[in-house]
Amino acid sequence: MDSVFRRVRIRNVLLRQCLAECLGVYILIVFGCGAVAQVTTSENSKGQYLSINLGFALGATFGVYVSQGVSGAHLNPAVTLSLCILGRHPWRSLPFYVFFQVFGAFLAAATVALQYYDAIMHFSSGQLTVTGPTATAGIFATYPADYLNLWSGFADQVIGTAMLLVCVLAVGDRRNTAVPPELGPLLVGLIVLVIGISMGANCGYALNPARDLGPRLYSYVAGWGDQVFWAGGGWWWVPLVAPCVGALVGSAVYVFLIEAHHPDLSLDAERADQCHTVDNKLALELEGVELDPNTPKGCPTEGQEAKKGEQG
Amino acid sequence: MDSVFRRVRIRNVLLRQCLAECLGVYILIVFGCGAVAQVTTSENSKGQYLSINLGFALGATFGVYVSQGVSGAHLNPAVTLSLCILGRHPWRSLPFYVFFQVFGAFLAAATVALQYYDAIMHFSSGQLTVTGPTATAGIFATYPADYLNLWSGFADQVIGTAMLLVCVLAVGDRRNTAVPPELGPLLVGLIVLVIGISMGANCGYALNPARDLGPRLYSYVAGWGDQVFWAGGGWWWVPLVAPCVGALVGSAVYVFLIEAHHPDLSLDAERADQCHTVDNKLALELEGVELDPNTPKGCPTEGQEAKKGEQG
Amino acid sequence: MDSVFRRVRIRNVLLRQCLAECLGVYILIVFGCGAVAQVTTSENSKGQYLSINLGFALGATFGVYVSQGVSGAHLNPAVTLSLCILGRHPWRSLPFYVFFQVFGAFLAAATVALQYYDAIMHFSSGQLTVTGPTATAGIFATYPADYLNLWSGFADQVIGTAMLLVCVLAVGDRRNTAVPPELGPLLVGLIVLVIGISMGANCGYALNPARDLGPRLYSYVAGWGDQVFWAGGGWWWVPLVAPCVGALVGSAVYVFLIEAHHPDLSLDAERADQCHTVDNKLALELEGVELDPNTPKGCPTEGQEAKKGEQG
Amino acid sequence: MDSVFRRVRIRNVLLRQCLAECLGVYILIVFGCGAVAQVTTSENSKGQYLSINLGFALGATFGVYVSQGVSGAHLNPAVTLSLCILGRHPWRSLPFYVFFQVFGAFLAAATVALQYYDAIMHFSSGQLTVTGPTATAGIFATYPADYLNLWSGFADQVIGTAMLLVCVLAVGDRRNTAVPPELGPLLVGLIVLVIGISMGANCGYALNPARDLGPRLYSYVAGWGDQVFWAGGGWWWVPLVAPCVGALVGSAVYVFLIEAHHPDLSLDAERADQCHTVDNKLALELEGVELDPNTPKGCPTEGQEAKKGEQG
Repeated sequence: MDSVFRRVRIRNVLLRQCLAECLGVYILIVFGCGAVAQVTTSENSKGQYLSINLGFALGATFGVYVSQGVSGAHLNPAVTLSLCILGRHPWRSLPFYVFFQVFGAFLAAATVALQYYDAIMHFSSGQLTVTGPTATAGIFATYPADYLNLWSGFADQVIGTAMLLVCVLAVGDRRNTAVPPELGPLLVGLIVLVIGISMGANCGYALNPARDLGPRLYSYVAGWGDQVFWAGGGWWWVPLVAPCVGALVGSAVYVFLIEAHHPDLSLDAERADQCHTVDNKLALELEGVELDPNTPKGCPTEGQEAKKGEQG
Repeated sequence: MDSVFRRVRIRNVLLRQCLAECLGVYILIVFGCGAVAQVTTSENSKGQYLSINLGFALGATFGVYVSQGVSGAHLNPAVTLSLCILGRHPWRSLPFYVFFQVFGAFLAAATVALQYYDAIMHFSSGQLTVTGPTATAGIFATYPADYLNLWSGFADQVIGTAMLLVCVLAVGDRRNTAVPPELGPLLVGLIVLVIGISMGANCGYALNPARDLGPRLYSYVAGWGDQVFWAGGGWWWVPLVAPCVGALVGSAVYVFLIEAHHPDLSLDAERADQCHTVDNKLALELEGVELDPNTPKGCPTEGQEAKKGEQG
Repeated sequence: MDSVFRRVRIRNVLLRQCLAECLGVYILIVFGCGAVAQVTTSENSKGQYLSINLGFALGATFGVYVSQGVSGAHLNPAVTLSLCILGRHPWRSLPFYVFFQVFGAFLAAATVALQYYDAIMHFSSGQLTVTGPTATAGIFATYPADYLNLWSGFADQVIGTAMLLVCVLAVGDRRNTAVPPELGPLLVGLIVLVIGISMGANCGYALNPARDLGPRLYSYVAGWGDQVFWAGGGWWWVPLVAPCVGALVGSAVYVFLIEAHHPDLSLDAERADQCHTVDNKLALELEGVELDPNTPKGCPTEGQEAKKGEQG
Repeated sequence: MDSVFRRVRIRNVLLRQCLAECLGVYILIVFGCGAVAQVTTSENSKGQYLSINLGFALGATFGVYVSQGVSGAHLNPAVTLSLCILGRHPWRSLPFYVFFQVFGAFLAAATVALQYYDAIMHFSSGQLTVTGPTATAGIFATYPADYLNLWSGFADQVIGTAMLLVCVLAVGDRRNTAVPPELGPLLVGLIVLVIGISMGANCGYALNPARDLGPRLYSYVAGWGDQVFWAGGGWWWVPLVAPCVGALVGSAVYVFLIEAHHPDLSLDAERADQCHTVDNKLALELEGVELDPNTPKGCPTEGQEAKKGEQG
C-alpha cells in the first residue's frame, strides 16, 4: 500500500485540512441527522429525544477523532471565526474551512436521505413537508418550536453557542485542567450532549452554521422546496448568525473570567507544550496538603520538571 | 491578544478563585436547571427524568473542568465548609467562596429563565406558580414530594450529601486509587449522576446550598413570589442546612473507615504529590501475584521509584 | 487532623481490608437498591429499568474506587472465593471478607429503607408485601419472574456471573489489554451495566451472594416477614450458590481460553508489575505494521523497556 | 496454578488467536442478542431500543478487551477482510478467523436461547415464529423493516459498515489522534453505539457477517425453521455481502481522505510504534500557540523525543 500512498499523497497543508474538516462534519451530520431520521420515521419506537442528543454528541466525538490531528477539528464556522479573532488560526484559511464544513454537511444530509429514503417515504406517505404531523424537513435543518419568538430563538442560539465555547476552551486550556489529546474528543461529545439535554427544546441546538446550512440546502434541492427558508418566520438565518455571536461571547467569558488571569501566561509556546502538570488544587486539598494561596500556581519550575522526569 | 491579557490580568488569587467558583456553579446550574426546564416545558417529549440527572451530572463535570485549576472546583458551600473543617482550605476564604457560589447560581437561574421565557409562558399559560399541574418553580429550586415529611427530607439530604463526599474523597485520595486530574471532573459527574438516579425521587437531590438558594432567590424576585419559601411546609432551609451536616458525616465516614488507616500517612506533601503509583491490590490479584498482607502498602520506596522512572 | 489520624489508625491489615469491603458493598447497594426504590415508588416517573442498571453499575464503580487500594475491591463473596481457588487471595481471610460484605449490604439496605420510608409507605399504603402490585420487597433482594423455572434461574445466575468474571479477568489481565488502575472501576461499572441490560429480565442479576443476602435479611427483620424466603418457590438460596458456581466457570473459561496461553507467563511478579506495554496487535495492524505471527508477544524485552524509558 | 498453566499452554499463535476471536465474538453476541431478548420478551418493560444499542456497544467493548492483546480483536469477518486487503493482516489466517468468529456467534446464540428459554416460551406461547406480533427470530439474526426495499437495505449496510471502518481506522491512526490501547475498546463500543442510534431502524445494523450468520444458523437448527432464510425477501445474504463492501468503502474513504496524506508516512514501523505524540493542532490553537502551516507535523524529531523522555 505504501507505494499507492506515495502516489496519491497531498502535500498542500490547507487542502489536507479542508478534506479533514469536510469528513469531520460529514461524520457529525451523518450520525446526528441520522439519529433524528431514525427517531422521526420510527415514531419514537427505535429511539427517543435522548437518542438524538447522543447521535449529535457521538457524531461530534468521532468527527473530532477523524480530523483533530490534521485540521484541528473545528467542525463549525463559528469556532473557526472565534479562533481567527483570538489570533489562534490564520484568517486566510477561514473561507476554505467554512466552505468545506458546509459541503461536508451537505453530503452527509444526502447520505441520510439515501439511507432513510424508504423510511421517509413510508412515514410521510411520499409528501415531503416542512410543517405538519408528518413533516420530515426537521431531519435535516433546525426549525423553532411554535411558541418561540424569533428573537428569543436568537438569544437561545447565542447562549447555547457561548456555553459550547466556554466548555471547549476550558477543556483545551492546559493551565486549567490539562486534558490529554485522546480524551478531548470524548469531552467535546459530552459538551454537545449536555447542551442538547438542557438547551435543545426551543429550536434544536444548531450552534453551528455549517450543521444547519448544509442540510437545509440539501433539503431545498431534494424536494422540500423553499418552505425550508420561509418556515418559522424566516428562521433560516438565525442558526447562521447567532452562533457566531455566541461563540465570541463565550470566548470572551472564558478568557476574561479565567484564562487571562493564569499566572504563567508569559511562558513561551514550547514550554507550555511540554508542561503536562495540572495545577490541581482540588486534589491537593482532598489529599490534605496545605496550600499557600500566595504562591503563583501553574507549571512547575524547570528543576521540578527534571525531577519528575527522573521518577517517571 | 497577549497585550490585552496583560492589561486585564487579575493578580489577586482569592478574586480569581471567586470568579472561577462563580463560573463553575453557573455552568452547573445552567445545564442542570436548563434540563429541568426542557423536560418540564416539553412535557417529557424532549427528555425524561434521566435527562435531568444527566444535565446536573454533566453540568458538574464541566463546572469542575472550568474551575478546577484555579479554585479547586468546590462549587458547593457544603464542600468548602468540610474542607475548612478538615484543615484543607483556609477559613478566611469561606465567605467569599460561598457568596460567589450563590451568585453564580443566581445568574444561571436568570439565564435559564431568559432562555426558556417563551416556553415557560406557553407551558404555564403565563401563570408562574409553585404548585399545581403547571407549576414551574421546580425548574429553579427543589421542592419535596407530597408524601415527604420534613424530617425525612432532612435525612434524605444528609444521606445524599454524605454519599457525595464519601465518593469525592475516595476519588481524590491518591493513596487509594490514584485518579489523574483530567479524569476527576468526569468522575464527579458520575457521582452526581448516580445520586440523582438513586436519591432524586424524594426531594430533588439539591445536596448543595448554593444550587438551591441562588435559583430560589431568583424565582422569588422574578415573579414566583414568596410561595417559593412557604411551599413544602417551609422546605427552603432544609437544602441549606442538611447538606452541610451530610458533608461532615460523609467526610467522617471516609476518613475514619479508609483514609486514616493508610500506612504512609506521614509522608510529606511533596512526596505524596509525586507518588502516582496506586497500591492496586485487585490488579495484582487478578494477575496472580502473591501479596504479603503484612507488608505496608502505598507509595513505593525511593529505590523503586527511581527504577520505574528509568523504565518510563 | 494528622494527630487525630495517628490516634485512630488501625494497623491490622485484615481489619482495614474488611472495613473497606464493608464500605464498598455499602456504596454498591445504597446506589443500586436506591435506584430500585426510586423507580418502584415513583412508578417509573423518576426513572426506568435503565436507571436501575445505571444505579448498580455506578454503585459498583464507586464501591471499587472506595476500596480498591485497600482490600482489592472484591465486593462479592463469589469473587473472593474464585480468587482463593486461583491462589491469588489467602483462604484465611475469606470468612472475614464475606462477613463484612454481607454486613455492608445489610447496612445499605437499612439506609435505603430509612431514606425511602415515606415513599414506600405512600406507594404500598403501608402494606409491606413480597408479591402483588404494590410489592416492595424487590427493592432489597431479587425475586424471579413468574414464568421462570427455578433451575432456569440457576442457569441464568451461573451464566451471568461467569460473564462477569470473564470480563473482570480480561480487564485485569495486563498481558492482554493493560488497563491502568484508575480506569478499572469504570470498566467494572460498565460490565455490571451490560449484564443488567442483557441478563436482568429473568431474575434481577444478583450475581453476588452478599448483594442478595444482606438486603434479604434486612427485609426479613424489617417487616416483610418470612415470605422473603418462601417467595419464588424458595428462590433465596439460588443467588447464594449459583454465583459461586458461575464465578468458577467464568474464571476457568478466561484462564483456559486466553490467560494460560500468554507466552510470558513465567515472568516473575515484579517484572509483570512494571510491564505496562500492551501487546496491541489491533493498533499495529490499523497502523499498517507487519507482524510476524511467530514472534512471541507480550512484555517487551529488557532492552526495549530501557529504550522506551529514555523516550518517555 | 502455574504448573497447570504450563501443561495446558497452547503455543500455536493462530490457534490462540482463533480462540480469542471466538470468545470475543461470543461476548459481543451474548450481550447484544441478550439485550434484544430482554427487551423483546419483557415487552419493553425491562429495557428499550437504547438498551439494545448499549448491549451491542458494550458487548463490542468487552469483546475487544478480551481478545485485543491476542488476536487484534477483529470480531468481524468484514474487518479481517479489509485488513488483509490493506496488507495489515496475513491472508492465510483469514478463513480460520472467519470460522471461529461465526462459531463464537453460534455458541453465543445458543447461550442466549438457553438463558431466555422460559421467557421466549412464555412470550411467544411456545410458537417460535420469524414474523408476526410474537416473533422471536429477531432476537438472533437481523430482519429488514416492512417498508424496506432489498437494495435500500444493501445500501444501508454498506453505509453503516463504511462509517464503522472510517471511525475505527481514525481511532487507531496514531498519526491522527494517538489513542492509548486501553481506551480503544471503549471507543469501539461508542462507535457501535452511535451507529445503532442513527442507523439501526431500517434493518438492525448487523454490519458484521459473523454477528448475523452465526445466530441465524442457530435459530435455523433450534426450531425457527427455514423461514429465517426466506423472510424479508431472502434477506439473509445481505448482512453477509454488504458489510464486506462497506468495509472496503470505509477503508478507502479514510485512507484517501486522511491517512495517505500524513507527512511522516515513510517512518519505519518501530519509530511509529514509539511515537505517542499527537499532532494536536486544536489543543495548540486553543492554547494560543501560533502554528506555521508549512511545517510538516507529526512525530517529533529524535532530539525532541529524547528531551521529552528526560521530562517524563
